[in-house]
Amino acid sequence: MPKRSLPLSKVYALIEPGPVVLLTTAAAGQSNVMAMSWHTMLEFEPPLIGCVVSNRNHSYGLLKKSRECVINIPTVDIADKVVGCGNTTGARTDKFGKFGLTPCPAAVVQAPLIEECYANLECRVVDTSLVSKYMLFVMEVVKAWVDPKAKYPRTIHHLRYGSFMVAGETIKLRSKMR
Amino acid sequence: MPKRSLPLSKVYALIEPGPVVLLTTAAAGQSNVMAMSWHTMLEFEPPLIGCVVSNRNHSYGLLKKSRECVINIPTVDIADKVVGCGNTTGARTDKFGKFGLTPCPAAVVQAPLIEECYANLECRVVDTSLVSKYMLFVMEVVKAWVDPKAKYPRTIHHLRYGSFMVAGETIKLRSKMR
Repeated sequence: MPKRSLPLSKVYALIEPGPVVLLTTAAAGQSNVMAMSWHTMLEFEPPLIGCVVSNRNHSYGLLKKSRECVINIPTVDIADKVVGCGNTTGARTDKFGKFGLTPCPAAVVQAPLIEECYANLECRVVDTSLVSKYMLFVMEVVKAWVDPKAKYPRTIHHLRYGSFMVAGETIKLRSKMR
Repeated sequence: MPKRSLPLSKVYALIEPGPVVLLTTAAAGQSNVMAMSWHTMLEFEPPLIGCVVSNRNHSYGLLKKSRECVINIPTVDIADKVVGCGNTTGARTDKFGKFGLTPCPAAVVQAPLIEECYANLECRVVDTSLVSKYMLFVMEVVKAWVDPKAKYPRTIHHLRYGSFMVAGETIKLRSKMR
């Protein structure tokens, strides 16, 4: 899937609709993937994203150590792999191998891009001051990639216990809203 | 629309999919509505929600003063009203009147519920320490209401400049994920 570089000013439009994302991390020769729904934009440009990564997640240690990650955005065609990632721990499982997710080298960070995801956001952790209270990491997106063919990506949005809402139609209304 | 009280432990499932919400505030005899997409769950129970409310928004002052709000979740049938709220400022407009949104008294907070929204979360601001840096308010949901008929609510999810993704089908996969 040949991806194109996306201007950082357009990153917000990938995160605002609230998709489930796959967070990849790497440190000390280990890498991992976790499914994540608790995230929000915090700033347009440079794009800042607040992400809750619990200390019960194996990725927490890798994220703290490396202070880098990739936010990968999957679509419904790999929903089963996303649920698989959410149901297993990287402490005992190589999730890339187990679920057939292909790690690709990133341009700027050590954490891998997931090839099967339609968009990949390379991030640096820029603020850990909210980690102790809310396990909220503030990431700055430093490089963004998107599949140019994915015009209306069918992202998945977590409801509860394995139920997901799949992105439906796109509507356009007159707006000055950014 | 007769709404039912929703257990606070179930609130996360309304916010996790990432819908646009309408935030209502009231202070000193004034009330307002704003459209908001920058929010995330921060804790399951009691439910904590982090919301970015910019100091360029008229609601910012009302929220700081009252330390209360309601997070109302609209569906696609009132998408035009949502865009209207996003395109106007409460400093010069009574948005309830202009867009035909019906304010109803809340049970616990002073800010009004919006009748036309399928769910309403009454909130107290519990942490303003992240406001100066990220304009991020931490809200605790203290009372939640939902329309029992809205089983698969067609929420709207902001993409960019008046484009919204409308919630599509619901899929269920085997999961232990909460």
